[in-house]
Amino acid sequence: MEVLILGGGGFLGQKLARRLALRGVLRGRPVARLVLADIAEPAPVEAPFPVATARCDIADPASLAAVFDAATDVVFLLAAVVSGQAEEDLDLGLRVNLMGTLNVLERARALGTRPVVVFTSSIAVYGGEVPDPVTDHTFLNPQTSYGTQKAMGELLLNDYARRGLVDGRGFRLPTITVRPGRPNRAASGFMSSIFREPLSGQEAVCPVGPEFAHYYLSPRRCVENLIRGAELAAEALGRNRCMTMPGRTWRIGEMIAAMTRVAGPGPARLIRWEEDPAVARIVGGWRSDIRADRALALGLSADESFEDNIRFHLEDEAPRV
Amino acid sequence: MEVLILGGGGFLGQKLARRLALRGVLRGRPVARLVLADIAEPAPVEAPFPVATARCDIADPASLAAVFDAATDVVFLLAAVVSGQAEEDLDLGLRVNLMGTLNVLERARALGTRPVVVFTSSIAVYGGEVPDPVTDHTFLNPQTSYGTQKAMGELLLNDYARRGLVDGRGFRLPTITVRPGRPNRAASGFMSSIFREPLSGQEAVCPVGPEFAHYYLSPRRCVENLIRGAELAAEALGRNRCMTMPGRTWRIGEMIAAMTRVAGPGPARLIRWEEDPAVARIVGGWRSDIRADRALALGLSADESFEDNIRFHLEDEAPRV
Repeated sequence: MEVLILGGGGFLGQKLARRLALRGVLRGRPVARLVLADIAEPAPVEAPFPVATARCDIADPASLAAVFDAATDVVFLLAAVVSGQAEEDLDLGLRVNLMGTLNVLERARALGTRPVVVFTSSIAVYGGEVPDPVTDHTFLNPQTSYGTQKAMGELLLNDYARRGLVDGRGFRLPTITVRPGRPNRAASGFMSSIFREPLSGQEAVCPVGPEFAHYYLSPRRCVENLIRGAELAAEALGRNRCMTMPGRTWRIGEMIAAMTRVAGPGPARLIRWEEDPAVARIVGGWRSDIRADRALALGLSADESFEDNIRFHLEDEAPRV
Repeated sequence: MEVLILGGGGFLGQKLARRLALRGVLRGRPVARLVLADIAEPAPVEAPFPVATARCDIADPASLAAVFDAATDVVFLLAAVVSGQAEEDLDLGLRVNLMGTLNVLERARALGTRPVVVFTSSIAVYGGEVPDPVTDHTFLNPQTSYGTQKAMGELLLNDYARRGLVDGRGFRLPTITVRPGRPNRAASGFMSSIFREPLSGQEAVCPVGPEFAHYYLSPRRCVENLIRGAELAAEALGRNRCMTMPGRTWRIGEMIAAMTRVAGPGPARLIRWEEDPAVARIVGGWRSDIRADRALALGLSADESFEDNIRFHLEDEAPRV
């Protein structure tokens, strides 16, 4: 079993690699090799099997071919240009999110090996005048270029799977909170920083009010769901290979109260409330009444509580000695 | 008002050109020039305004730039690789239906003139395990590469419209019956040939049974709807620029009975019933319980009856002297 993580240098890719290292198996077979590929050289990950790291631009077919070959059994396609950046730079978003996804599928087609491709879509595919609740059969109506490009990726993945060129499965990720590391250019960045920074004693700015509701999942559960997603039987997927990954809908105020229950009253005092109309405009177009019935029925899961989410963050992101 | 029809050599493009010639106006302004562009040189159309014809491959940006310039106010994007061919040749479908559509939008973006772009999508975007009835807010779940590429075109059109780069509007065309001319490679070809050939005294083969139900529109109404679509106010379109064009659902047996009521019993006797599993597999995946509420509310319309449709065909396709 050889595994390739495109976007293997990102926080999800690194967590997924560490989880695979702990598990040692995927789809019932021992992992014989793991390749972490990203636009910048990924950090190495210790594992009981060989781990290679490589620079790779998925928008460049030759670069992709160097890491994705006939021995590759499972590809996790996490590499993407995030929402804020795709909105600012339409060309870059099209190049990486649309053409990069097409290149991965075309590489699989050229190899003829029908690899498992786990595609990460996003709940940003939902939006506009579409009735609540948002289900697996809700019209995809993105209101950002990022959401548009992800919805197009879903369509391509389904078509290449239907044609027997890949064994695709796609998951619309909730907003992943609490993200470790430094802020990125996603409009959703504050949804992690208002917890991450205060929990390590630093100030953070919240650009929306405490009533703002959104659909979240912890990084730990997300990685578990991606692995579960790779292991689903193709026959269980029917005539659409993409579904929403389970999450939970919470208001900012509830989430901060949960942080206080886990970590005491100090962190919440480090949040400065400063409304930002530009951020509010983007995230205000995202949907929050979202159901993930298909994925739940297939054994994927959400966090039980936001307290869990905070605890996972403190356990997983404690400084390593 | 300068108008460009991409796919101007096809039967819909030619009918649209003749209708514009009769009307002389579009969006409240006199048509000053019409360009008919297609992969093969389009037939000229007589009009009270200048009509140019040109060869153009929409998959080639330079070829497109030669016909689409800053003077172009309205683009009708009818050019496409049809369903049977897109299924046989994935590369060609991606090149024309996906990249060609992207090229049209990119050309508009480069010009900076925000032209009206009327995009023709298809009810082939619907399919799979999605509950009936199919509405404007039903999940797009195509089961063909053609439907996939059209659904991706819708997403691109919406995103470029949202960004203010085009004034886009897209319509999911029903199966257009009775098509004039010769059979093409669409899997739906028989849905015209079983009327067109018998009405001119020739045999035709029906590859599905009389109970097969589908969603149809006459070419005449389709052209009227495309013009109405071009004239809709942008403000009426909301946060999704694409909708289903009105049609009617009929069974093959009902349609043949309607032909008999209009044209007597002779034509129906020229139909040979020979089931074809390959055609049945493709068209059996298409949906028929389809509602076009948005377009109906905006003033687009369907045929009143299939008798109308047969009459329009006899009137419009009578040999010209």
